[in-house]
Amino acid sequence: MKPMKLPTEARLRQLIEKNNIKALREFCETGHPAAVAEMLSGLNKQEAWTVLRNVDFPVRAEIFSHLDEDFGAKIIGILKRDEAAHLLSDMPPDDRADLFKRLPEEIRESVLPSLAKAEREDIRRLAAYQEGTAGAVMTSDYAMLLPHLTAVDAIDHLRHVAPDRETIYYAYVVDENRKLLGFVSLKDLILARRDAKVGDLMNRDFIFARTDEDQESAADKIQKYDLIALPVVTDEETLVGIITHDDAMDIITQEYTEDMEKFMAIAGPHEDAVYMKTSSWVHFKNRSIWVAMLAVVGLVSGFIVQSFEGILMQVALLAAFMPMLADTGGNTGSQSAILVIRALAQKEVSPRDIFRVLIKEFRVGLLLALILAAIAFVRVLLLSGGTQIPDHFSLSRIGLAVSLALGLQVITATLIGAMLPLGAARLKLDPAVVASPALTTFVDITGLLIYFMTVKWVLGM
Amino acid sequence: MKPMKLPTEARLRQLIEKNNIKALREFCETGHPAAVAEMLSGLNKQEAWTVLRNVDFPVRAEIFSHLDEDFGAKIIGILKRDEAAHLLSDMPPDDRADLFKRLPEEIRESVLPSLAKAEREDIRRLAAYQEGTAGAVMTSDYAMLLPHLTAVDAIDHLRHVAPDRETIYYAYVVDENRKLLGFVSLKDLILARRDAKVGDLMNRDFIFARTDEDQESAADKIQKYDLIALPVVTDEETLVGIITHDDAMDIITQEYTEDMEKFMAIAGPHEDAVYMKTSSWVHFKNRSIWVAMLAVVGLVSGFIVQSFEGILMQVALLAAFMPMLADTGGNTGSQSAILVIRALAQKEVSPRDIFRVLIKEFRVGLLLALILAAIAFVRVLLLSGGTQIPDHFSLSRIGLAVSLALGLQVITATLIGAMLPLGAARLKLDPAVVASPALTTFVDITGLLIYFMTVKWVLGM
Repeated sequence: MKPMKLPTEARLRQLIEKNNIKALREFCETGHPAAVAEMLSGLNKQEAWTVLRNVDFPVRAEIFSHLDEDFGAKIIGILKRDEAAHLLSDMPPDDRADLFKRLPEEIRESVLPSLAKAEREDIRRLAAYQEGTAGAVMTSDYAMLLPHLTAVDAIDHLRHVAPDRETIYYAYVVDENRKLLGFVSLKDLILARRDAKVGDLMNRDFIFARTDEDQESAADKIQKYDLIALPVVTDEETLVGIITHDDAMDIITQEYTEDMEKFMAIAGPHEDAVYMKTSSWVHFKNRSIWVAMLAVVGLVSGFIVQSFEGILMQVALLAAFMPMLADTGGNTGSQSAILVIRALAQKEVSPRDIFRVLIKEFRVGLLLALILAAIAFVRVLLLSGGTQIPDHFSLSRIGLAVSLALGLQVITATLIGAMLPLGAARLKLDPAVVASPALTTFVDITGLLIYFMTVKWVLGM
Repeated sequence: MKPMKLPTEARLRQLIEKNNIKALREFCETGHPAAVAEMLSGLNKQEAWTVLRNVDFPVRAEIFSHLDEDFGAKIIGILKRDEAAHLLSDMPPDDRADLFKRLPEEIRESVLPSLAKAEREDIRRLAAYQEGTAGAVMTSDYAMLLPHLTAVDAIDHLRHVAPDRETIYYAYVVDENRKLLGFVSLKDLILARRDAKVGDLMNRDFIFARTDEDQESAADKIQKYDLIALPVVTDEETLVGIITHDDAMDIITQEYTEDMEKFMAIAGPHEDAVYMKTSSWVHFKNRSIWVAMLAVVGLVSGFIVQSFEGILMQVALLAAFMPMLADTGGNTGSQSAILVIRALAQKEVSPRDIFRVLIKEFRVGLLLALILAAIAFVRVLLLSGGTQIPDHFSLSRIGLAVSLALGLQVITATLIGAMLPLGAARLKLDPAVVASPALTTFVDITGLLIYFMTVKWVLGM
């Protein structure tokens, strides 16, 4: 067994400097295109092109399609028009359309006329679908079969088209108007009698996506039904593309990152968020919107504290428990929110289950409240040394007040944390919009009200 | 085009009650196994078995392998020994081994002797790998070829074994000791000359995983290299299983849920965390550990507030900004933490980039500090009405103190949020252990120190 060997980055630069074409070709042709592309990302656009220029066309295009799109667009920018056109025409249609969208207007205008008419139209069609839909991620390199073919003729046809197709393991059966009728797997064809008709072999109960369907929903179908590819159809049920399992995996990863960032109230298009390549200014814009808005909303908590200033002046010790109250409420609320968001995403619960979820969360919240109230009570006793307490309040009474308030806060926060994502889902919003910082700010306000009112009541102030 | 039709749950129950075997069979045989399994999950074990009992063996096993493992184990529990053995022997080996681990000891003991020797050994072998490793998620139903076969003989062999193999699209080439030499795709075989030798056709530079490798690392390889399946080998490079693309997708989803839960400081085995099926008590245990520990650590922030009690007594207004300080620090710190954690997970940054990351975060933090300090200054002016300020402090001086403290807190929190996951990664820990609640508690402590010290210094107290 020979594990893949790649040169180090230093060695690669050396080869480029020496213009050692033979070694560079070998590097590109023996390494996996994804691994080669990863190494090229460490170079500048000129160096990367020096490496790619010497490689045969299909391999070059394959490596290129694994490059980060922005880097790819930069390289296209330094090529001659014909070189760029040739490279684009060899790329898989979906990657090509994505790359094309990143090219500056003038390069697009200059390259398009050098492409064959079919490719020009393919790029235009694929680039027209809205970002985030099944149409925008599908590829047009799929294998089609007509129903009257025999199994052996179908395999022959697939063999013929294989080099240009993303996959030949699934072939889609269409009528003369490209209306999707079903699909056959290469396995079905190989197992069938030689003269069996494709129309009889095909699976008629197939899963598909519409072009305007959310890319996440399409990827979920691929995951749920263990598919290698999913056909994408228009409203007229015409087959226009497929989404392959590897693209589905990338969509799912991208959606996760998006969910996580949303949950932390980070705005902006999450798709291309490449951490190091995003400028500090864009990072700032994405992160500041919500945080700043919440700081303004936080005014309310300031007003609450201020309106109970009298109580704080009398029992200064009470201020020492405000940070714990804020943190514990935020933590327990965010925990139940994240669990409910994940359960919603994995279809384990639906908005209709709201009462079952709330009962469960109430029980969990009650248990959490008991343990945290106990900790708070001990804290009051520990922190009491050196502070001045008005004579008519006993320390245990203050402990009772703080514990009770914290317990109520934990139960409320847990319930709010579970309720908000369920509510968002019911309103057909993404449950992850119930961002943890927003929840924390909200729970802080309810928490301070609970705290001061409970303290006032228990201490009879 | 005929979209998949499934009966409603009510209709399904009706069919079961009427014991309408024909309709139940049709339901199972026309629906996708994953969809049928999903519907069965709504029934009780007895009802589910009534549906499955009437279906032919291979279909029954396929539906069964899509059921949640705990539910599957419950159904196995009510079967006769021979029924259980037959069902298990038809299942894909990886699902079977997973299900087997869930069965109570006495059922395992009773079923094992009814299984064929090869299956018994297969179960024992697969169940022996540690949870979370490539060995534990692989399946032993892969297609093998010897290098001296011709392409046409190889296709013939694959046709022969296809019904029992998870995939025949990749076939693994081994020597007589099962040492992995390379792999061929079915596409390679179909495109090759009929008499080409498998040994000449095979890819020798292939990607693989070791049995004890982390399942996440194996799934990442499938994602990075767009594979349909990944071979798993022992330390002696003997082929023992494969991981398929659909299992890789499930692993990635599971690891993501785990990361999210870890980030929210939720403990426990994240793999089987099915929200509704987990008891409130287990939820409580998983969530309370960290939250309770942090509440204890939070004692420190209480001590800090208490030791600056004198300042609060003089300028009570200062207490009103403590919640904002705590929230803003937690929010900005968690944001930079989540971005760095995701960037680490997607290999966009490595622990070696720590200085580049910190410079970027410092810039972002500085910008955030400016905007939040401005908001804080306005807040001081707005909240000043009705409060008593000692004569020798001007309102704008208090505003300056609060703004400066908040700005410093935001910069510190942003840097700490970025630094902790990078530090964890350098120590080869999962960056997600830097849970948001822990970070919040930590940043609270630093924040309160910054706050009181800045205020003391600016106001000259």
